[in-house]
Amino acid sequence: MQTSTLQELGRAARRAAYQTAKASTEQKNNALQSIAKALERNKQQILQANEEDIQAARSDGLSEALIDRLSLLNGRLDGMIRDVLDVVKLPDPVGVQFEEKTLPNGLRVAKCRTPIGVLGVIYESRPNVTIDVAALTLKTGNCALLRGGSETIRTNKQLVEAIQEGLKAVQLPSDAIQLVPSSDRQQVKELLRMHESIDLIIPRGGAGLHQFCRENSTIPVITGGIGICHLFVDETADRAKAIQVIINAKTQRPTVCNALDTILVHEKIAQQFIPAVVEALRSYKVSFKVDESAYRILTGNEEAVTKAESHDWDTEWLSLVLGIKVVNGLEEAMAHIRQHSTGHSDGILTQNMKHGEQFVKEVDSAAVYINASTRFTDGGQLGLGAEVAISTQKLHARGPMGLQELTTYKWIIRGDYHTRA
Amino acid sequence: MQTSTLQELGRAARRAAYQTAKASTEQKNNALQSIAKALERNKQQILQANEEDIQAARSDGLSEALIDRLSLLNGRLDGMIRDVLDVVKLPDPVGVQFEEKTLPNGLRVAKCRTPIGVLGVIYESRPNVTIDVAALTLKTGNCALLRGGSETIRTNKQLVEAIQEGLKAVQLPSDAIQLVPSSDRQQVKELLRMHESIDLIIPRGGAGLHQFCRENSTIPVITGGIGICHLFVDETADRAKAIQVIINAKTQRPTVCNALDTILVHEKIAQQFIPAVVEALRSYKVSFKVDESAYRILTGNEEAVTKAESHDWDTEWLSLVLGIKVVNGLEEAMAHIRQHSTGHSDGILTQNMKHGEQFVKEVDSAAVYINASTRFTDGGQLGLGAEVAISTQKLHARGPMGLQELTTYKWIIRGDYHTRA
Repeated sequence: MQTSTLQELGRAARRAAYQTAKASTEQKNNALQSIAKALERNKQQILQANEEDIQAARSDGLSEALIDRLSLLNGRLDGMIRDVLDVVKLPDPVGVQFEEKTLPNGLRVAKCRTPIGVLGVIYESRPNVTIDVAALTLKTGNCALLRGGSETIRTNKQLVEAIQEGLKAVQLPSDAIQLVPSSDRQQVKELLRMHESIDLIIPRGGAGLHQFCRENSTIPVITGGIGICHLFVDETADRAKAIQVIINAKTQRPTVCNALDTILVHEKIAQQFIPAVVEALRSYKVSFKVDESAYRILTGNEEAVTKAESHDWDTEWLSLVLGIKVVNGLEEAMAHIRQHSTGHSDGILTQNMKHGEQFVKEVDSAAVYINASTRFTDGGQLGLGAEVAISTQKLHARGPMGLQELTTYKWIIRGDYHTRA
Repeated sequence: MQTSTLQELGRAARRAAYQTAKASTEQKNNALQSIAKALERNKQQILQANEEDIQAARSDGLSEALIDRLSLLNGRLDGMIRDVLDVVKLPDPVGVQFEEKTLPNGLRVAKCRTPIGVLGVIYESRPNVTIDVAALTLKTGNCALLRGGSETIRTNKQLVEAIQEGLKAVQLPSDAIQLVPSSDRQQVKELLRMHESIDLIIPRGGAGLHQFCRENSTIPVITGGIGICHLFVDETADRAKAIQVIINAKTQRPTVCNALDTILVHEKIAQQFIPAVVEALRSYKVSFKVDESAYRILTGNEEAVTKAESHDWDTEWLSLVLGIKVVNGLEEAMAHIRQHSTGHSDGILTQNMKHGEQFVKEVDSAAVYINASTRFTDGGQLGLGAEVAISTQKLHARGPMGLQELTTYKWIIRGDYHTRA
């Protein structure tokens, strides 16, 4: 693929964005239904391309875990089609007016939600992202350039062809969703500088990808998805319930960003609570990285317990490892979080609501919790109906991003030939 | 100044931001009053430093217009002190909870406005920006690293010393507002990569500065302040009133970003309307860059009228020049705006409200107008009470940015030891 071609994709997306921005909710919903039908119609080709990707991955020696991530077998494609139809049911944020007011001079002022324009989405392995992102992009009147991983390029090509077939059937521009047909990193670099045609970059992947985007982009980037998450177990916490929350936060799905990484335990309960947590998590095969104080308390449990090194507190485990540290109270807990949290999800377990409220006021993370598992940081769980990313940066959107977070606004000012005095 | 020192300023700002984020509205208002007093107390030193800047500017051969921009004489310093006290009266957005809801599982979810953290503000000449930005930054619980122009460095040092004196007097950290004590562009580059300690870059200056920031920053940048602004005069516009709006938009303050650059005139009224506009603007010393059709209509007016070249439609005039183009209707007007607008402020003058509504729906600019002067795109005029910048990018904030736009939000989730199913 030539460099010029990438620029052409960008220009085509920009042109298409003018059409999708004008589209009514009905037109956009028709497009989603048409895409679902096209995916249904092209199932065989899609699954065959996916099979080829899987074969190639296998002969390239990719791990079974990675191969599982890119597979569309076992009803996953059907699930993706259902997801597209679910987006039809979500409310359309575009065109909603808010903060309406009439100024003393009679000017009528309102903000009105509008699409952002063209999104550049850079992601890895899982092909369901292609469909998810396309559906949310179209519902909000945006367009997207999608750059998936090389290991799913055949699948993604088939998926995007079906999307474009669906768009054409309802007279919306097929350029609204385009796939960057190569996975050369130099091209990602070029994409990141196409601020004339792309309005927002959404990376979905590991810390390395996010850093690469931030370092190289001249377009705003939503960074996020990296979670070193903490729970502070206060002196007054209900200990039995606290252990259930910790089990949930650590073990329900340890490979994701909102999984628990470190518990901070109040020194006054450490002696009893820490052995109880270790005991409870033993059957979940959790191992522990603990500070000096916890290590002393845990004498006799050495098989699953090792002393934490300083970098361990800055590690997102993404696995069945839990850090444990003893703190002398709320202030020390918050100081640890300030130093080591990635600003994703942090919580307090306590019966002391003054402590609870102080914690959520002072801890500066995208999601702060009183007495709940960090696993709730998720667009679906928090009632957004969908999720395009979880932002841990502070601009535009923070935490789970749903449809509304894929819009911007403009000011509409209606007057009677008003002039400024 | 050593490189390490800039990093130290950043770390000090980050530490201070933790304190200012916690500060109550009362504490922040006390700080503003204390700063106003400190400025009052240090008036003589400030004006003396300003005099030295002016002398230096004169001996460097700066234009009188530029020297006027950096001067604090003629009551300007008093005006700045009043501006600080005005910010006391504005409502504090921090801590406000919104979008509160209780989920079916009983979790209580809310968003809560919080400070962004540390702002990096890069600006030129006018020293009132130092005070304005400091007041708005502190009111919203943020901190700032200020990098002003070299031509006002003495004045800015005195102003920031007074600010810091005011902060100390109310036990808030003086590092909350710091001046980068050098104006080396290499240092700006370093500042733009300090994403560990700076959360947002706000450039205030010309297109070159904005581009430099976008190209070199690893921190989110609010670009804006560049306005190629249009008014489309529709067939049905009230012509006498339309001319008054055009006079206002073009001549009231031609050097600013919301001043009018181009009028697009419906062909059905062009023959009468264009000569009338030229006639009306003659006494304001406006000259005209016009398309072929308008040129033919204006035969005999050649002294103030020249044919536009293609790049003229992409020029922000910032002076008493007006572009005039004849279009065959709403669609052609919107197509011209789509191609040439910087997305700042564009309007339609019409009696046909169907056209009016179509225009504000489809034109994708930060502020879109029906029957009003583009000069209203301003935080003060639109009721924000203050303005830190005008954004023409689409992320986070668009158009005039007041106090609320200097905040982000976090999700607060309150439960009863909830676990995810």
